[in-house]
Amino acid sequence: MAEKKKILLLATGGTIACVETDRGFVPGVSGADLLQEISGIKAEAEFQARQLMNIDSSEMQVSDWRTMARAVVGAQDEYDGIVITHGTDTMCYTAAALSFMLRDLRVPVLLTGSQKPSTVQDSDGPENLQAVCRFVLEADPGVGIVFNRKLIHGVRAFKMYSKNKDAYVSRNYPVLAELKADEIIWHHRLKTIGQGPGLETNDSIAIPADTNFCEDVALLKLVPNSNPDLLSYFARAGYRGLVIEGFGAGGIANLTRGMASGIRQLIEDYKIPVLMISQCPYDGVNLSIYGIGETALSLGVIPGNDMTTEVAVTKLMWILGKTNQPELIREMVQYNYLDEITQN
Amino acid sequence: MAEKKKILLLATGGTIACVETDRGFVPGVSGADLLQEISGIKAEAEFQARQLMNIDSSEMQVSDWRTMARAVVGAQDEYDGIVITHGTDTMCYTAAALSFMLRDLRVPVLLTGSQKPSTVQDSDGPENLQAVCRFVLEADPGVGIVFNRKLIHGVRAFKMYSKNKDAYVSRNYPVLAELKADEIIWHHRLKTIGQGPGLETNDSIAIPADTNFCEDVALLKLVPNSNPDLLSYFARAGYRGLVIEGFGAGGIANLTRGMASGIRQLIEDYKIPVLMISQCPYDGVNLSIYGIGETALSLGVIPGNDMTTEVAVTKLMWILGKTNQPELIREMVQYNYLDEITQN
Repeated sequence: MAEKKKILLLATGGTIACVETDRGFVPGVSGADLLQEISGIKAEAEFQARQLMNIDSSEMQVSDWRTMARAVVGAQDEYDGIVITHGTDTMCYTAAALSFMLRDLRVPVLLTGSQKPSTVQDSDGPENLQAVCRFVLEADPGVGIVFNRKLIHGVRAFKMYSKNKDAYVSRNYPVLAELKADEIIWHHRLKTIGQGPGLETNDSIAIPADTNFCEDVALLKLVPNSNPDLLSYFARAGYRGLVIEGFGAGGIANLTRGMASGIRQLIEDYKIPVLMISQCPYDGVNLSIYGIGETALSLGVIPGNDMTTEVAVTKLMWILGKTNQPELIREMVQYNYLDEITQN
Repeated sequence: MAEKKKILLLATGGTIACVETDRGFVPGVSGADLLQEISGIKAEAEFQARQLMNIDSSEMQVSDWRTMARAVVGAQDEYDGIVITHGTDTMCYTAAALSFMLRDLRVPVLLTGSQKPSTVQDSDGPENLQAVCRFVLEADPGVGIVFNRKLIHGVRAFKMYSKNKDAYVSRNYPVLAELKADEIIWHHRLKTIGQGPGLETNDSIAIPADTNFCEDVALLKLVPNSNPDLLSYFARAGYRGLVIEGFGAGGIANLTRGMASGIRQLIEDYKIPVLMISQCPYDGVNLSIYGIGETALSLGVIPGNDMTTEVAVTKLMWILGKTNQPELIREMVQYNYLDEITQN
């Protein structure tokens, strides 16, 4: 008889752990309490819970991603899979960050949560917990999000709905697996980062978790009246990287009215890489179609193709933790490490 | 025999007007040329074209919205409907802005464009032009977007796809009408602004187009590492209003690490209204559920419910063009003028 698999639940808070208070719902339920919800699956595996923090995921910081990454690396020899309960609001940022931090991961790391507190009637918490415990027993190593009976690649997940229980979509990438009736239908497997530009062969032995993220990355979502002065603010304030959410396939507001020279200054004078992604959830940018995109390319803007904002920001943090060489930064942004970017 | 309807096409450029050059596609086709594409519909109405500008819509500014609004107001006595050809990238911003500028509009104003230049094979330009000319003959007064055989309310349109021909969705609101085979199926009618808080009864007589927008409105899309210093930059730089795209139902990054005091300072010391909307395209914010939302409310943040970014930014520009009284600003942001916001 095969030995039972051992699964670790790392609890971080979020709606799934919320209890009602006189100032609204706040996280309060423990990971050990959450394990009560999966009684049906307990016979198939051995579950243990560990509380890392108990916070609203809007408060999650880079330091919290590091805490999670180190907990995973410290546990992956002892456990066959890891479940992280997490608030839904920044779950896609955490999933993307962990995807870059957890190189050569040897177990599946699946995040879940709920849109309604598990302490209220009609919560999706118990169902999501039961589903994630099913997926984690079958999944390959990698970071994913399990929600509403679907498994989504951690670098492709996007919160499309702030309230609907089917909260996440897989952007520009197929859903990996679905739980239908009581069976998991696999379409694709999870992936982890192996080798690629910027990664020394021996890194994975030297680095327990690849947590050296640069936190000085800014996001600028353009609007038609965006003022080029914002660009020089980012340079003066000491940011080391900028992600621009442009219009459509990569349009920049005010390009001919000051924005172009501001971007050129960031890139040439301040050596700040500028990465361009789209405000449109689907299809991404392509700077080689329109005159306005060609101008952006000529300024040195790096096209982020179809990366989500969550991936673009965390990937740039990860890259800038390794190098400040413009050409290597450009190569790494555009390199496809784990299906986080579609190459044109 | 009924007199033929007169329709005016206001051409502004965009992909639909693009021609290939050695620096990529740039607008070059005229409105008069575009009229050639609707030969089948010409028998039903009389079409005239007028060129307002010929630009990539990423370059559209508040001043360009004013130009369009004034052209519409100047033409609405002479024409029965107005079509605006426009780049797809900022079409939703323009549609939202015109919705606020064109009070007591007496004709339909329908925007369209294309994802592929009408000068290339397989362009969606001709089909969208033919469709918009069909819709404009039947529509009520109001501002809408016609794309891929659908009519979407101008304050609910969102560009979901940067390349797919079915580019726009109607967010948190039904599609108004669809062109099926050769017939328009109407579900809902367009709407215009009539009266409401901040609008004097006689305004519409005094103001030919309500174009007194305040351009000093900033957008801040939060990421988990958002730095509270950004908030004081907006105050120092002279912005008069701030729209924050928060997480999920309205979460704010770093609320307990400096963001709360920064927001309080903006609102109390600088009298800058702060409007909160969601990064999630669907369902919007609700600050009355979670502790973190309640904290935002207590700071004076105004919940924007399910308004799109395009609407939140242009509506705040419009409001700040009329008043600087905090209570009236709050009332106007939350007032539903033309189904641009769902009231909780």
